[in-house]
Amino acid sequence: MSSKREQPPGPGRPRDPEADAAILRAAMEILVEQGVAGASIDRIAKRANVAKVTVYRRWSAKEDLLADAIEAVREEIPAADETDRPAEDLHAIIDQLLPQWSEALVQPRLRVLTARLLSAGPDHPKLLDAYREHHVKPRRERALATLRRARDTGILDPDSDLDMLIDMMNGAIIQFVLLAENPIRPAEAREYLTRLFRQAGLHE
Amino acid sequence: MSSKREQPPGPGRPRDPEADAAILRAAMEILVEQGVAGASIDRIAKRANVAKVTVYRRWSAKEDLLADAIEAVREEIPAADETDRPAEDLHAIIDQLLPQWSEALVQPRLRVLTARLLSAGPDHPKLLDAYREHHVKPRRERALATLRRARDTGILDPDSDLDMLIDMMNGAIIQFVLLAENPIRPAEAREYLTRLFRQAGLHE
Repeated sequence: MSSKREQPPGPGRPRDPEADAAILRAAMEILVEQGVAGASIDRIAKRANVAKVTVYRRWSAKEDLLADAIEAVREEIPAADETDRPAEDLHAIIDQLLPQWSEALVQPRLRVLTARLLSAGPDHPKLLDAYREHHVKPRRERALATLRRARDTGILDPDSDLDMLIDMMNGAIIQFVLLAENPIRPAEAREYLTRLFRQAGLHE
Repeated sequence: MSSKREQPPGPGRPRDPEADAAILRAAMEILVEQGVAGASIDRIAKRANVAKVTVYRRWSAKEDLLADAIEAVREEIPAADETDRPAEDLHAIIDQLLPQWSEALVQPRLRVLTARLLSAGPDHPKLLDAYREHHVKPRRERALATLRRARDTGILDPDSDLDMLIDMMNGAIIQFVLLAENPIRPAEAREYLTRLFRQAGLHE
């Protein structure tokens, strides 16, 4: 969730969830097809079939819109704290989510969006700033809470560096997605994630 | 080393190491400044002050040249098997190389080149292919040999997944370099690497 969404809408200008969804979808598609440089508000508004002012009413900067568009795809991947299992039962949570996580990783658009985002640093630093602030930091807090529980329940070593472990796990997944030689098949993604959880000490 | 360099030079056309170095430097600079799309052989030849045919005599494809240019910067970072210490003494090797590794990670051009390379997948897959084939695979073999020794000498768990550990360590470093909020200072890079080696089980 971007902090933008929590601001009250302007007077007499109630939000239109359908327009918002169309704008996010258009932004995502154009970002995939043409990269950050090609994803202008103008193009996005045209593709979403809304007036430019409708976009600006909701997102004051293109980078905030693109960050939210990337996150909308990222949000389709369930987090470890989103199952109905008790938080202590991390092995069972992983087993439950593994099929969904594997399916998510093989999506070609996720691969492209990850490449667009991570390469934004040199030429489009504001996109990386917006994404880091609105999305990376809150998600890391949740992941840390999950790993803290894993440490407290004895799954992880008591002196584990949880922040570093998150970097190592995220980093491995990013590499897997970005450097894959061919389109990834769900079975490969599943095997990779299984090995990752095992080497991270989070699964047997 | 690209496989290109191992081919014998054509008859009557001995290699000119100075021209090669100038071409690699020009390619690196233009890649940093303008990205893959802007790094044409034409521009590179002009910047290096050589004829286009001189470039083509040595690199038949732009992607091979760009991959070699990235690797020339990457090669300045010493590998764990390049010290004069015995391979068993991994802790001492890490202590010895840590200052050089930390200095390397803070270079802004390394950050930009990493971003250019990892984002090449969607729009310039041949660059990623060339880099993977000529540079990633040989380097991984050497890293694996080092980690195998660490496992055989009892530093790492006997059932460690060494391939996965390399992905996790590389991935953490890639994330650190690409997602840093501000220019990284050498002391921060050093602290990060120290934590990484510790969490990976390679140092105390």
